[in-house]
Amino acid sequence: MTIKAKIRLYVDAPLGQGQSLSLSRDQAHYLTGVMRQKAGAMVALFNGRDGEWQAELVEAGKRKAVLSCVEQSKPQKIPPDLWLYFAPIKKTRTDFIVEKAAELGAARICPVQTDFTNAERIRQDRLQAHAVEAAEQCGETYVPPVEALQKLNAVLGNWPEDRKLLFCDETLVEDATKGLQGEVGEKWAILIGPEGGFSDAEITRLRAMKATRSISLGPRVLRADTAAVAALTLWQNALGDWR
Amino acid sequence: MTIKAKIRLYVDAPLGQGQSLSLSRDQAHYLTGVMRQKAGAMVALFNGRDGEWQAELVEAGKRKAVLSCVEQSKPQKIPPDLWLYFAPIKKTRTDFIVEKAAELGAARICPVQTDFTNAERIRQDRLQAHAVEAAEQCGETYVPPVEALQKLNAVLGNWPEDRKLLFCDETLVEDATKGLQGEVGEKWAILIGPEGGFSDAEITRLRAMKATRSISLGPRVLRADTAAVAALTLWQNALGDWR
Repeated sequence: MTIKAKIRLYVDAPLGQGQSLSLSRDQAHYLTGVMRQKAGAMVALFNGRDGEWQAELVEAGKRKAVLSCVEQSKPQKIPPDLWLYFAPIKKTRTDFIVEKAAELGAARICPVQTDFTNAERIRQDRLQAHAVEAAEQCGETYVPPVEALQKLNAVLGNWPEDRKLLFCDETLVEDATKGLQGEVGEKWAILIGPEGGFSDAEITRLRAMKATRSISLGPRVLRADTAAVAALTLWQNALGDWR
Repeated sequence: MTIKAKIRLYVDAPLGQGQSLSLSRDQAHYLTGVMRQKAGAMVALFNGRDGEWQAELVEAGKRKAVLSCVEQSKPQKIPPDLWLYFAPIKKTRTDFIVEKAAELGAARICPVQTDFTNAERIRQDRLQAHAVEAAEQCGETYVPPVEALQKLNAVLGNWPEDRKLLFCDETLVEDATKGLQGEVGEKWAILIGPEGGFSDAEITRLRAMKATRSISLGPRVLRADTAAVAALTLWQNALGDWR
């Protein structure tokens, strides 16, 4: 009988049958100090590439913890090819968007600076840590990379021909979700603006792009974090792996 | 030309042509102290019943502020008849669920105690204040009432015959959104469990109820707050006022 580990950790090392690895000092402290695990305890590990593995704690020191992979408990899953572009807003709401994007199966998380974005920099490492934590919590084997902050104009200027762009247009009233049509397996990205929306110039440019598909998120003005979750939900339900 | 007020306040008083009202001490302090508004300034007011009104600040004291309604700027809107039942979780995530439910147009917010809910009490007034703030921010004219904490078993025991119950069942794999069928204008409720889900007894009871419609929220394990936003989105999109 397999004992399923309750503690789940993201690691950077390769995972595979019989593979041993040392945890980072922080993770060793968490596992043996905070969670008080002793040698012999089972821990679930994933690295975003090799699926999830049940691993045995073979050395449990305060600063050093060594684990040995016993068996694979989940195959590696790759989410549909959906990217989320969003304009960073207040700290907790930005953290929240990253957490929810990881939970809802975005393949890549891309902060963008728009005309109405105040943020000039982001803490990419901190946001990446939020994506890792969301994956640890939710039993995911994949962790979406959080990209560096880019300017929206540059992103749109280099938009790849084969990727559709889902634009949540607050002014759209009819055929609200008509834009969410396509074949399963296509490349998509969702674009969520900051509180206050996009500038007129941005809207004009977005509407003129061949890649753009517009949808409405209903008659209410949604906060940016709500809009991100709602758009990810509608996309996964219509074109992603929810059906 | 009407000057549209940027500040938007929820008040309890009746609103109508020529109607005057005094703000509470806290709101007066916010308006004149924090936001430094002077007599003559315009403020948008709503009370959940009479739509939104543009009102002029006619007396601007530190502890007293008197406003006079000038004209209605939005008619009163009533959202579709959708209730959200959810199990309170950690403080910030519970606050978040209430905020998002108000934003996404739930008509009523009902915290429930399930077998796996740790919370034995909630701060109903604080949660209600979050719903008010969400409505203020998002330009809504309606504020969903936040009910007192009830036991799920009691709620299910008295379930009204004419209200469908949307149950987000993690074990459902096929026909994931088949449960989301119905006529526009019907009465519905969404039920979201705590982290850790429902007990076996609760699941058995829910599945046996005539009112229950089951849906799946995809192959990932979602946190309770994410599940609430996703379910509200799918319902509004399929049966609510998003289409």
